[in-house]
Amino acid sequence: MERLEQQLRFILELDKQKEIGRQTYLADGARKEGDAEHAWHMAIMAFLLADYSNVEIDILKTIKMILLHDVIEIDAGDTYAYDNEANKTKKARELKAADRIYGILPEDQQREYRALWEEFEAMETPEAKFANTLDKIQPLLLNHASGGISWREHGVKKEQVMGRNARTHEGSEVLWEYAKKLIKENIKNGNIAE
Amino acid sequence: MERLEQQLRFILELDKQKEIGRQTYLADGARKEGDAEHAWHMAIMAFLLADYSNVEIDILKTIKMILLHDVIEIDAGDTYAYDNEANKTKKARELKAADRIYGILPEDQQREYRALWEEFEAMETPEAKFANTLDKIQPLLLNHASGGISWREHGVKKEQVMGRNARTHEGSEVLWEYAKKLIKENIKNGNIAE
Repeated sequence: MERLEQQLRFILELDKQKEIGRQTYLADGARKEGDAEHAWHMAIMAFLLADYSNVEIDILKTIKMILLHDVIEIDAGDTYAYDNEANKTKKARELKAADRIYGILPEDQQREYRALWEEFEAMETPEAKFANTLDKIQPLLLNHASGGISWREHGVKKEQVMGRNARTHEGSEVLWEYAKKLIKENIKNGNIAE
Repeated sequence: MERLEQQLRFILELDKQKEIGRQTYLADGARKEGDAEHAWHMAIMAFLLADYSNVEIDILKTIKMILLHDVIEIDAGDTYAYDNEANKTKKARELKAADRIYGILPEDQQREYRALWEEFEAMETPEAKFANTLDKIQPLLLNHASGGISWREHGVKKEQVMGRNARTHEGSEVLWEYAKKLIKENIKNGNIAE
């Protein structure tokens, strides 16, 4: 029973992630999306688009990684991609969060899921590369669909978008080719500053 | 490229599910949760709690089923569990929605994911039984954590909760035992009417 209690405590803790907001607007521009919604959307993309991964991936592992990749934001908050100051302290805040939140789980699961998060962050394995690619493509699709509200609100520049996406091709050349077309279109129409 | 376009059209369509509201409140009672958040939460429960399934399950299949199980609510809306009138028209509304929404996908994926939804609804396979159990346990955990706001708001009675959970044990006897304790506690403190 102790094991189940620990697992359910973790599951209830995760509920807080629904209240962590992101800077990306929903496709219809009605409001910004939340962390849990983002992870759900990405997880579906993982199996629908798995064939576009540059190399074969373990889909189940990729989905687990995605579903939990932002859990640390419960304590560390969402660090906006183009906020340089916040990005300086991001790593330290997230490590502390990982200690506390994964620490709620039974030891074997604690080890497994924390390792998956570290793998995601390290971006070295095929699964981590593909998950990171989806983490960039998902907001790109939404930003494009919403008419670039978030880019315009923050005055985001082409170099910033390209810099942030420097490794997006590593997970999927096909998806990165598609993304480049969207970026180009949004530079042309002024949503992304030249 | 046509295949990728269809898949991305489906992925953008899914974005609407984030705006479908449920009757369950978040654990802290701050607001009600959305469909996508509910599916994300359930999908994590699927792999964290898989050992409690009465029989062994294919976890990847269960997660895919869960992530997509409420997609039809984009057109059909969320039918509240204890709304008898709405439940009479639920099936017809959902079938029509499945035709349209899964119809956006390439044919092979259309077949696979629609079949998964039908499997979930039929509740016959181990994966469908476990997914349905989580679909009941997840709101129960939240209702309990929020002090039963949703039950009290709707004046939900013990027979309704027990009726709705008549088959919850089929996915997991362990989780159903735990759920029964929560239900008992909430009858005792008046959140669920006797």
